[in-house]
Amino acid sequence: MKVLVFGAGQLAQMMYLAAAPLGVEVYAIDVNAREVVNPMNKQKLDMTIEYAISDASIVTAEFEHVPEDLLSLAEKSGKLSPNMDAILTGADRVREKHVLNRTGINNCEHVIINHVDQLGDAISSLGSKIIFKASRDGYDGYGQWRYLSPDELPKLQQAFASLDLQNVPLVAEKMLAFDREISIIGARDAAGNTACFDIAENLHHEGQLHVSIAPATNLNESIKQQAQDIFDRLASALSYVGVLSVEMFQIGDELIVNEIAPRVHNSGHWTQKGADTSQFEQHIRSVLGFPLGDTSSKQVTAMVNIIGCTSFRRDLISIPGCHLHWYGKEVREKRKMGHINVVASSYHELGEKLLELLQYVPTEYFPLLEGEANRLKSLDA
Amino acid sequence: MKVLVFGAGQLAQMMYLAAAPLGVEVYAIDVNAREVVNPMNKQKLDMTIEYAISDASIVTAEFEHVPEDLLSLAEKSGKLSPNMDAILTGADRVREKHVLNRTGINNCEHVIINHVDQLGDAISSLGSKIIFKASRDGYDGYGQWRYLSPDELPKLQQAFASLDLQNVPLVAEKMLAFDREISIIGARDAAGNTACFDIAENLHHEGQLHVSIAPATNLNESIKQQAQDIFDRLASALSYVGVLSVEMFQIGDELIVNEIAPRVHNSGHWTQKGADTSQFEQHIRSVLGFPLGDTSSKQVTAMVNIIGCTSFRRDLISIPGCHLHWYGKEVREKRKMGHINVVASSYHELGEKLLELLQYVPTEYFPLLEGEANRLKSLDA
Repeated sequence: MKVLVFGAGQLAQMMYLAAAPLGVEVYAIDVNAREVVNPMNKQKLDMTIEYAISDASIVTAEFEHVPEDLLSLAEKSGKLSPNMDAILTGADRVREKHVLNRTGINNCEHVIINHVDQLGDAISSLGSKIIFKASRDGYDGYGQWRYLSPDELPKLQQAFASLDLQNVPLVAEKMLAFDREISIIGARDAAGNTACFDIAENLHHEGQLHVSIAPATNLNESIKQQAQDIFDRLASALSYVGVLSVEMFQIGDELIVNEIAPRVHNSGHWTQKGADTSQFEQHIRSVLGFPLGDTSSKQVTAMVNIIGCTSFRRDLISIPGCHLHWYGKEVREKRKMGHINVVASSYHELGEKLLELLQYVPTEYFPLLEGEANRLKSLDA
Repeated sequence: MKVLVFGAGQLAQMMYLAAAPLGVEVYAIDVNAREVVNPMNKQKLDMTIEYAISDASIVTAEFEHVPEDLLSLAEKSGKLSPNMDAILTGADRVREKHVLNRTGINNCEHVIINHVDQLGDAISSLGSKIIFKASRDGYDGYGQWRYLSPDELPKLQQAFASLDLQNVPLVAEKMLAFDREISIIGARDAAGNTACFDIAENLHHEGQLHVSIAPATNLNESIKQQAQDIFDRLASALSYVGVLSVEMFQIGDELIVNEIAPRVHNSGHWTQKGADTSQFEQHIRSVLGFPLGDTSSKQVTAMVNIIGCTSFRRDLISIPGCHLHWYGKEVREKRKMGHINVVASSYHELGEKLLELLQYVPTEYFPLLEGEANRLKSLDA
């Protein structure tokens, strides 16, 4: 069996590694070069995209920013999973907001801006702290602008004047004083069954995910229930098949959806070591119509991203329970180069292991690690 | 970094899958075709064996029956790990016996037969139940003959007369009434550090491994200590670097070494799900000089081989904790097609899961499963 993936990055690689034991081969489409490649070594395979689609059992995506003509090709074959509408919803904040509003799911108060003249109205309706996000092609903090004081208005007006807001509107969101960000990742199969992993707690720095802890600490039943309910309603509304990821802000006992990713997600990489079935295997299982796997966590896990840096000590894998996932990419500023999964039997032990990990990595690239390690260490000693 | 593996079967495949996250690429040599291939899809790579050796960081083996000229090429490059002598020891029962005797490690009472005329003496010295094993190229029950009554002497004499015993002697071993077979698998690094996995308990049928349970049930400290000691002495005597596997018979509180495999081993496949570091990752770590990983078991695991059969229900992966590893080979009688790892939190639960597994597989190909499931179910309820 073959699964064809739009996108040939690390997520396609990790799908390949998870699919192989099931007897499933993963091919990838480099959507920029428009070539079919082996996702492991990026070597071009001697076939057209059309042939690869016809040859595959299922076509899926590792990211949502796939050119629409390619998605259409796959959708027409009847093999695209998740469906095109679900992928495009994840790729477009305006569509995403429509789905959230239609399903009555809490999300950040917002205004959609199609013209720079709407800026003043947006500010008066949303208050003094606003984040503006390009509706498409923006992720990891790119295509985002913050408004924190009236002094910034002229600068923003100037920035927005050069954008094609008619085509790519902005979503202006009221900035929330949230307690933390969490995410729920799960799979839905074609029969509508869902299976979610434990909720992860995510720490960002300059718009990028740096650390996830799973299961999230201090989770009460109400939050778990809300998250599961949000996942089920969204997956159902999108007629979703595959792994779906939902980022949420927690404010007290309330959850507000921040973002939907129609795919496996960085905040689910911990499942490679911390859950019985990884999100990558689960995605392959669900899109191929195989039974969903056990999502239970046996230990507690920290996932630590390696961002823009190669200068860590490779012998960090000497720490018991510490596992490296290196993506084999050229280093660039802010680029995700790999991640480290650390498993432990308690949060306290996990904190101790993360403190040990600090000895192996340059602190400037891991600015949140020490604080989080100390926080975890103070728990359930 | 690149690791080149002699042999392009499922063990090289599983090394590939375990090495990729460490940023290590695995190439394989099909020793019959004498071609360098991608172990995942068996595609021929456009390079000579000589070039592949020069291009690799390390050369290793997934099996011991590698032609000596190829091993020599690798040994001369200084990159072969484990070393040639260790690999050849695993490939030759006569050399193996010499190492066991030299290191004073208990092994089956035996006579080496270089000429068919020695048969009578062997029988009078070893008693009424003897197993004759070809010293080279015999595994999984091939190249083995049993002597259970004097009536069988003429048949054996006839069989042995056609063999080149001068070149490939037989090892005649007294058949032992052992309680069970267990194996210890571990790694030794270049500095002499060793790390062993929990001991596995192995169930054979017609000379082939069918089921392994790890950690083995009813292990006392004396047995654990003996096994560890045997491993350390053998690994040290062989100046071994990499993963080494030792099969042993347990008779009461005594261990007798049956066989040494200078490689990852079928009875260690359970580590993929049951141990923090798999034997495949551990082998890659040790041969590349990376730190050895944590070998601890978090759960109990059964590894169930799929032998000579494709007619099982693929939805067996719906059983929680049940993971399929399919090798993608053409089916042949007695051929290892894949394996299933089942993890559980207790032996009792593991037994229940194996009983469930019986619903998905044709019993005739899994003759030991029901008995073992029931035995496990009766433990620590």
